[in-house]
Amino acid sequence: MGFVKEFFIGPDQVRAFADLVGDHNPVHLDAEFARTTKYGGPICHGMLVASFISGCLVEALGQGTVYVEQSVRFRRPVPVGSRIRVLLGEPEAAPKGQSLLTTVIEVQQGEIWKKVLEGQATVISGGGVGEGAESPPLNPG
Amino acid sequence: MGFVKEFFIGPDQVRAFADLVGDHNPVHLDAEFARTTKYGGPICHGMLVASFISGCLVEALGQGTVYVEQSVRFRRPVPVGSRIRVLLGEPEAAPKGQSLLTTVIEVQQGEIWKKVLEGQATVISGGGVGEGAESPPLNPG
Repeated sequence: MGFVKEFFIGPDQVRAFADLVGDHNPVHLDAEFARTTKYGGPICHGMLVASFISGCLVEALGQGTVYVEQSVRFRRPVPVGSRIRVLLGEPEAAPKGQSLLTTVIEVQQGEIWKKVLEGQATVISGGGVGEGAESPPLNPG
Repeated sequence: MGFVKEFFIGPDQVRAFADLVGDHNPVHLDAEFARTTKYGGPICHGMLVASFISGCLVEALGQGTVYVEQSVRFRRPVPVGSRIRVLLGEPEAAPKGQSLLTTVIEVQQGEIWKKVLEGQATVISGGGVGEGAESPPLNPG
């Protein structure tokens, strides 16, 4: 399928996410503190980075896409003020009408994109929202 | 450890998350549309629900907590306007200084709490942020 989409994560996004989910770890929010850490500056919440997969699944597979499972493995931090891109693999059919697809996120460093997150999404795709399913209702992405 | 923390997810939170990560699926945002779906009304983004684990890990395990991996399996939708609670299991030691712990989220339905998400977090806990680690730097929660 080759779905790719870029996003920018700046201080406003990080602050909004911190307030939204109540994660005020100073390594994300306090530039002075963050400079004293091994990261050398503020970095994005891992789950904020991972959350950009959600809308991409809907965009790539349609509004009827139902999230069943997501796994994410963090490979390196994303400095606040980074351009990232979400890459979705080709969906593979799985039992119970589900599809599996790889989910990768990369961060731009100069001219290079480096992998920051890899994982797998399990979704029920294709059906319109509101169509019946044999399995219990799950969370749309 | 028995860490438990409650949160409320209302329309303001769902709108903020939609704008933040660019997921404007109408099943989350358009009450009239959502009423026509099998969910019977607007529901929260799965990744928004999952994101509440992040701050809980930091609160339970300390600011030095480094996110290595998170898996989430969605069991049922969370209606917008719900009280949820995050439950963290006792961390179990794993190789490379990592710890594994179960992560569960439940939604309140009247007097009952029902499981909406289950999964596992892999973290490096205990060290203060900025302390060295042999593995490459990863994402704090």
